[in-house]
Amino acid sequence: MINKLVSKIQKTNAPIVVGLDPMLSYIPEHILKKAYAEFGETLEGAAEAVWQFNKEIIDKTYDLIPAVKPQIAMYEQFGIEGLKAFHKTVEYCKEKDLVVIGDIKRGDIGSTSEAYAVGHLGQVQIGNNKFRGFDEDFVTVNPYLGSDGVKPFVKVAKEEKKGLFILVKTSNPSSGEFQDRLIDGRPLYEIVGEKVAEWGADHMGDSYSYVGAVVGATYPEMGKVLRNIMPKAYILVPGYGAQGGKGADLVHFFNEDGLGAIVNSSRGIIAAYKQEAYAKFGAENFGDASRAAVEDMITDISTALNAKF
Amino acid sequence: MINKLVSKIQKTNAPIVVGLDPMLSYIPEHILKKAYAEFGETLEGAAEAVWQFNKEIIDKTYDLIPAVKPQIAMYEQFGIEGLKAFHKTVEYCKEKDLVVIGDIKRGDIGSTSEAYAVGHLGQVQIGNNKFRGFDEDFVTVNPYLGSDGVKPFVKVAKEEKKGLFILVKTSNPSSGEFQDRLIDGRPLYEIVGEKVAEWGADHMGDSYSYVGAVVGATYPEMGKVLRNIMPKAYILVPGYGAQGGKGADLVHFFNEDGLGAIVNSSRGIIAAYKQEAYAKFGAENFGDASRAAVEDMITDISTALNAKF
Repeated sequence: MINKLVSKIQKTNAPIVVGLDPMLSYIPEHILKKAYAEFGETLEGAAEAVWQFNKEIIDKTYDLIPAVKPQIAMYEQFGIEGLKAFHKTVEYCKEKDLVVIGDIKRGDIGSTSEAYAVGHLGQVQIGNNKFRGFDEDFVTVNPYLGSDGVKPFVKVAKEEKKGLFILVKTSNPSSGEFQDRLIDGRPLYEIVGEKVAEWGADHMGDSYSYVGAVVGATYPEMGKVLRNIMPKAYILVPGYGAQGGKGADLVHFFNEDGLGAIVNSSRGIIAAYKQEAYAKFGAENFGDASRAAVEDMITDISTALNAKF
Repeated sequence: MINKLVSKIQKTNAPIVVGLDPMLSYIPEHILKKAYAEFGETLEGAAEAVWQFNKEIIDKTYDLIPAVKPQIAMYEQFGIEGLKAFHKTVEYCKEKDLVVIGDIKRGDIGSTSEAYAVGHLGQVQIGNNKFRGFDEDFVTVNPYLGSDGVKPFVKVAKEEKKGLFILVKTSNPSSGEFQDRLIDGRPLYEIVGEKVAEWGADHMGDSYSYVGAVVGATYPEMGKVLRNIMPKAYILVPGYGAQGGKGADLVHFFNEDGLGAIVNSSRGIIAAYKQEAYAKFGAENFGDASRAAVEDMITDISTALNAKF
């Protein structure tokens, strides 16, 4: 799956991923109205609105992009109905041949981590049958519990030829509270980055490992250091756009082959129609606004990469 | 809810929580057979078996214990059907007036953390209506992303008078890989523990904070230090029994009032019928075996606490 991700990035020339993190406040009135008319102002109604919103954005962008990253929290807030919309979204994106990164940030120990891995990447054995629960291609994993927590994910990922992105240095302002603290003179995120390289050495694709890392666009200097510590790890870079990261900041996350990083934008793409730059499309044509925002993001990043490499 | 937890612990004289972490391999043949006969060897069949297994254990133990801790990974592995069984289990435990600690170990940033908090503790607004997704009383939270990740949980918990347990020092062998690393001469888990005390000061119950901590039974000396760093935090202690923790190790997690900690046992209770000590009950009466295991656990912990206080 890492090979597929790399080849799709090369084919689209777009090292980007669209974050499908729908908040109800992003969804245009006409979509909400239709969903509520059918299912009421209920969990089902909200889930239907989320699904229709996603579908339109996927339909309007899938040919430009290699991957999507649905954020499961935005679905989980609607309980079971929301998780059905998450599952439907994952399935639909795979029909469109997109690589799906489930942003689930799970992490536990031993058999519990394995249960998460089975539910999101693998197959669960029931009697003589095997079933897939959510079936993403990659998932994000929290490393706080150490190798016991991560290795069961690596095990299942290997069996399935799927991948992981481990949280290393997150994009938020307070990520330094623990992640930046110095241990023998080096920040914790570097120690975690070293472990990512170690875990990933055990599960290599053709040129990159199946075990990647999450490093926020908002910390480009740290990205440069981490790029060297984990040369074979794909870096998933959140924080572009709405959180403040810009194309020029991102070059440090890439290797000299022009590969090695994939940049996420969520609100900046899916709620593009609410920005002044794309307001001309109108709420009715929110999918076209998202497509234009994707094209602009690709140009911004290509320009920065061409200037460097 | 922390007040309710404390008063239920006092009433039952049992500072324990039963971990509802059903693996299919724990579930007796007759339960599996019946569920598969009705729903086939499918996700629905597995979910039904899990639910019937849980129900029997709850029915046989609820009057002895203050709380349960369902581990959501064990349900999530069965996809949507598994999560329905999780939801049904949460609802049923609340009907039995048990305090429900959702062991979800979520953690993200800003609006994403808030979405998790809303889905598991709070209410989501849909048009003019509000709905509860999973509706546990407490949830476990991973602190790796810092205050930005935890505070949205605290906010929702305050609105709902519900609580959190933040991972501080986990019970697994490799938990020290990051958590024990020294920062200015002190381990990371102490720094996290100080933050738990700080977050919790903002959301106090009568005698304890709504913001508690997870500290593994397998690290009693660290528990002693953390007890002092977070005097008002309830400590959720996993790792008793199957993972090797014993009653005598646990006294350090309690305050001098005999309160301040709640000890989890999962496999040791729910799969008690598989242990030699409880084999006499037979698989048919697995609920009675669980009840006997709960009684023995209460005695073990009471004996240790009486020897100390």
